[in-house]
Amino acid sequence: MNYLQQPQLIEQHSFEIISDIIAAEHPDYRFNDAIQEAMIKRVIHTTADFEWLDILWFSPDVIEQLSKSLQRGCTLYTDTTMALSGINKTVLEQFGCSYRCYISDPRVVALAKEQGVTRSMAAVDVALQEEGEKIFVFGNAPTALFRLLEKGAKPAAVIGVPVGFVGAEESKEALVESGLPAIAARGRKGGSNVAAAIVNALLYRLKESA
Amino acid sequence: MNYLQQPQLIEQHSFEIISDIIAAEHPDYRFNDAIQEAMIKRVIHTTADFEWLDILWFSPDVIEQLSKSLQRGCTLYTDTTMALSGINKTVLEQFGCSYRCYISDPRVVALAKEQGVTRSMAAVDVALQEEGEKIFVFGNAPTALFRLLEKGAKPAAVIGVPVGFVGAEESKEALVESGLPAIAARGRKGGSNVAAAIVNALLYRLKESA
Repeated sequence: MNYLQQPQLIEQHSFEIISDIIAAEHPDYRFNDAIQEAMIKRVIHTTADFEWLDILWFSPDVIEQLSKSLQRGCTLYTDTTMALSGINKTVLEQFGCSYRCYISDPRVVALAKEQGVTRSMAAVDVALQEEGEKIFVFGNAPTALFRLLEKGAKPAAVIGVPVGFVGAEESKEALVESGLPAIAARGRKGGSNVAAAIVNALLYRLKESA
Repeated sequence: MNYLQQPQLIEQHSFEIISDIIAAEHPDYRFNDAIQEAMIKRVIHTTADFEWLDILWFSPDVIEQLSKSLQRGCTLYTDTTMALSGINKTVLEQFGCSYRCYISDPRVVALAKEQGVTRSMAAVDVALQEEGEKIFVFGNAPTALFRLLEKGAKPAAVIGVPVGFVGAEESKEALVESGLPAIAARGRKGGSNVAAAIVNALLYRLKESA
């Protein structure tokens, strides 16, 4: 069989095709800036879904906040192991960042049972007890996002893209209204893969310019 | 804030909403059988994308092959840690199944470098050297799927849903043509989350009927 076998060439060619499709099918579309463009294109790369051109919402300060926090070696908290699994941890470590997913942590399991809340919520509670600069990355759990907001937490930034049919959209609209530095997916779509793609797009841009 | 906090209720209500939307917006749509229905609905649950009603292709024998193999305690091989991360390993272990993702295995890293192939391809090569009944689960890497097919391997079944713009569609069409027991995503869409959702849907059905 004859097929392309060089990962970097495959990725490069993929992004060329994505750009060509946007130019052909959405000729009037304009990206706000190069980093938002990189994020949106990487989400399309990971979903093959061009609706993502119109789904992501960015607070005015979020790119700067995310960039500074990552460069200062902050801690990322994800709601699922799947989101954490998709994030490029090699690059994250190069910036001196830490990463955590507490969903299966024994403290979280105990706290969730004790308080009658979801493990996603208990994981937020445990994370908020820790010191240091935090970025929250939610691709799956609306309850995690609601919990963060109802606690009045002030993390450095939030990537809030839970997918789903019950609470997902409402949780993301609450994030948009919160005034926090945030990226949110409007509507039902989102996912752990989308969350990871957004983080990776920024990591690769920061690495290029480092 | 007022929001639903019981994971089982959230999931149950989500599937009711999905069924309602299908009935309202696709009134003539019919599922072939209950397991395919469970798989397709779980993929929609994980993507919020109703295009999945028309994307998944099932070989005539694949549901039976997958079910028997899982119940016999086969080994699942995934192309990414993200796909493996999304699969319910507790239920997999209840059936006596094993699971592997060799993408970062030192043997795979060495073999890929030595042969000038992708790590995804080398991971397939290493997997094929092992004994036992195998299910391959690919959500990301067309080169893994191409490799499996060019090796003429005869696994128990293949879930082939790589997402992307270079080789993804071609690799899945080659799977459809292969005659192997397989589930494939037609076109560009797919993903590690989709692959995991398909496996989980079947695991939950088998567990219910066990």
